[in-house]
Amino acid sequence: MTRNDAQALDTADPLAALRDQFDLPAGLIYLDGNSLGPLPRATARRVAEAVQQEWGQQLIGAWSGAGWIDLPQRIGDRIGKLLGAGPGELVVADSTSVNLYKVLSAALSLVQLREPASGEGRRVILTEAGNFPTDLYIAQSLAAERGFELQRVDPADLRNRLSQQGNGTDVAVLMLTHVNYRSGQLHDMAALSAAAHAAGALTVWDLAHSVGALPVDLHEDGADFAIGCGYKYLNGGPGAPAFVWAHPRHLPKLRQPLAGWMGHAAPFDFSPGFEPASGMARFLCGTPPVLSMVALACGVDTVLAAEAHGGMAALRKKSLVLTRLFADKVSADCPLLQVVSPAADSERGSQVCLTPIAGQEALAWPVVQALIARGVVGDFRAGDPNQPPGSIGAIDILRFGFTPLTLRHVDAWDAAEHLRQVIDSGEWRQPAFLHRNTVT
Amino acid sequence: MTRNDAQALDTADPLAALRDQFDLPAGLIYLDGNSLGPLPRATARRVAEAVQQEWGQQLIGAWSGAGWIDLPQRIGDRIGKLLGAGPGELVVADSTSVNLYKVLSAALSLVQLREPASGEGRRVILTEAGNFPTDLYIAQSLAAERGFELQRVDPADLRNRLSQQGNGTDVAVLMLTHVNYRSGQLHDMAALSAAAHAAGALTVWDLAHSVGALPVDLHEDGADFAIGCGYKYLNGGPGAPAFVWAHPRHLPKLRQPLAGWMGHAAPFDFSPGFEPASGMARFLCGTPPVLSMVALACGVDTVLAAEAHGGMAALRKKSLVLTRLFADKVSADCPLLQVVSPAADSERGSQVCLTPIAGQEALAWPVVQALIARGVVGDFRAGDPNQPPGSIGAIDILRFGFTPLTLRHVDAWDAAEHLRQVIDSGEWRQPAFLHRNTVT
Repeated sequence: MTRNDAQALDTADPLAALRDQFDLPAGLIYLDGNSLGPLPRATARRVAEAVQQEWGQQLIGAWSGAGWIDLPQRIGDRIGKLLGAGPGELVVADSTSVNLYKVLSAALSLVQLREPASGEGRRVILTEAGNFPTDLYIAQSLAAERGFELQRVDPADLRNRLSQQGNGTDVAVLMLTHVNYRSGQLHDMAALSAAAHAAGALTVWDLAHSVGALPVDLHEDGADFAIGCGYKYLNGGPGAPAFVWAHPRHLPKLRQPLAGWMGHAAPFDFSPGFEPASGMARFLCGTPPVLSMVALACGVDTVLAAEAHGGMAALRKKSLVLTRLFADKVSADCPLLQVVSPAADSERGSQVCLTPIAGQEALAWPVVQALIARGVVGDFRAGDPNQPPGSIGAIDILRFGFTPLTLRHVDAWDAAEHLRQVIDSGEWRQPAFLHRNTVT
Repeated sequence: MTRNDAQALDTADPLAALRDQFDLPAGLIYLDGNSLGPLPRATARRVAEAVQQEWGQQLIGAWSGAGWIDLPQRIGDRIGKLLGAGPGELVVADSTSVNLYKVLSAALSLVQLREPASGEGRRVILTEAGNFPTDLYIAQSLAAERGFELQRVDPADLRNRLSQQGNGTDVAVLMLTHVNYRSGQLHDMAALSAAAHAAGALTVWDLAHSVGALPVDLHEDGADFAIGCGYKYLNGGPGAPAFVWAHPRHLPKLRQPLAGWMGHAAPFDFSPGFEPASGMARFLCGTPPVLSMVALACGVDTVLAAEAHGGMAALRKKSLVLTRLFADKVSADCPLLQVVSPAADSERGSQVCLTPIAGQEALAWPVVQALIARGVVGDFRAGDPNQPPGSIGAIDILRFGFTPLTLRHVDAWDAAEHLRQVIDSGEWRQPAFLHRNTVT
């Protein structure tokens, strides 16, 4: 594919106009929307309105007068549309980590409630070895507290572990991030959920790298619980509040330990005993950070705007073209790098991950820095020397996220071309690029 | 005291200029800063800068470039100054409810660690009957989960309960809100902490209605753990993030269950096993909501600005004059109402609470609405019919918070005068004021 071919794809792109919802710095090719989505044009004005008109003028009255009190539900309903969830099924609250604690705890309680007699038998929280650390930490903490065990297995072994041969009947919960943050591998949510259910386990899906990037249908795909992040493909702003969903069939039986007043059946009765709200509001806890909530609402709207142009299916289609275009050009032009994200469309999220070939490990960090200096922003993920040699967890990763809402095909082409030039010219060897920060 | 006397107090007030830090709606007398502090003038510009320059232009680079990553510690250090806490002792994170869950859980674990043999003996979380509901709910949840019992006693009985006569040695944790949200009663933190320690218990103090309103010295006053709220007297904005403190002597032994990646010793190593940060950062969990954090920083600065004029001691002195002025004038001029907040300065927080005299219960709700219509904003707290008749929890409360940073003495006088007029004129009987909302 030539640059002209990429330009032709942009000309024909039915989603091209959606980019105008953002005010990106001129000349920047931003391939880190999977860490922090860019600023929508509408956000600055909306946040200023919430600060000056709502807080400043209405003060305490804004909780009802400006509708702050319903923000967790109203934004939740809008995110739900992207995930096949009906109205009232999903709420916005707290952070992804805190929400994982809530749903994983609720899931473990549900397992214990279902099988009081076989309490000894079903003690495993199953996940993949390279799941995002905060998910692993929260699960470790809950497992220790509640007498469960977190088992991390290679993603290729998950289905076998859930089968009869794998003694899957000791699994209480299958907890996975739908798209792996390092490898970009997309799990088959429907197949893995079915395998978990066949083993009698519940499923908890972290949609941090899925929501806003690819279609998900929580009901069809067999999720029991889901959580996700507001600041990646939802463009909700730095540290935007997260979301939480539970399958409505479980809801009446669910208790979560962070039983704060916003999750009470009647929070403004101020009664001394906790009574959970009848719906998903029982997964709320304290007072939500309103300024960050209104910014999140603007971000969610940028994704919902795609509905008129084919919605998540169209965004996914474009995302796959962008990632394939980039990966193919890198494969052709950058022999010192190899693509480690899956080549098959059905197994790839909205990112492309590269690693240096053997002997060229010194490239990884400085190449990312040299690209940033050129205005091509991806990120670097260090390998963990404690992981099995050669495994995805052990190798350094050059990570490039492709947000189909903001990126043009020509951006993907140009990014790959910059990468080629940075390596071929030796530009990456400049001293300024060699010093490695610990915070990335 | 006449209105002229109140004006004379304003003329002589060394803190008067601090009011100019806020942009209050013209003519409003805002007596609900203990629900939501008013908007500081500096906030709109700072939030806009964080949105447009930092997020919009620096994107992911702003985490280090704009210092977002250190906000929990940097704002925490500034709040710590108001509470006698040293640098690094306090962090900003999550909501008050979530932080209570962390510290109460850590406190219970510490008790179990200290007294593994007497695990059966020390099983009580002691609190006052009318503590803020979210504190009660979180404590109920943890008590049930961890095999403890929440005991709610009359505030007057707390010290006896902690004594030998009261069999205080079964108390694991004394958990109190320093100033009661309904009655305005200020607990003697030093004396109660000493009584708790004498019984071998730990102390958890909720400073929601203290921080920014009155001096607290966490070390001198014997706190083991403290949490508090950013959106009341700290003027941090709606749902502003909360804070959490633990005594440094306990820190090395403390584990909290919400073990998210921001609480890891090296969050950017992305290692699969959780290792808590060496300092208070171990009480962090997920990614903080940056836009709400920067607004909180502006709010904290409005209180720190008092340092040049006598600091928290001067603010407390003014607060007591304001509340006494209002309470005295109401007592003199409004015979249908009685003051239920403590008359003694040493027992009163920064609010005045009223209730109708017997037979006049119908006044409470509509009087508050009629005052709001006049631009005097207090709030109404409904009595709970399930509480003991005549107790503070059973009666309807007209609640007026006095933020010494923004209020003039003449505001306190005028508010009491409006109250007199609303009652004497029968204005409160207008149909518009009689309809009672459930959300207040």
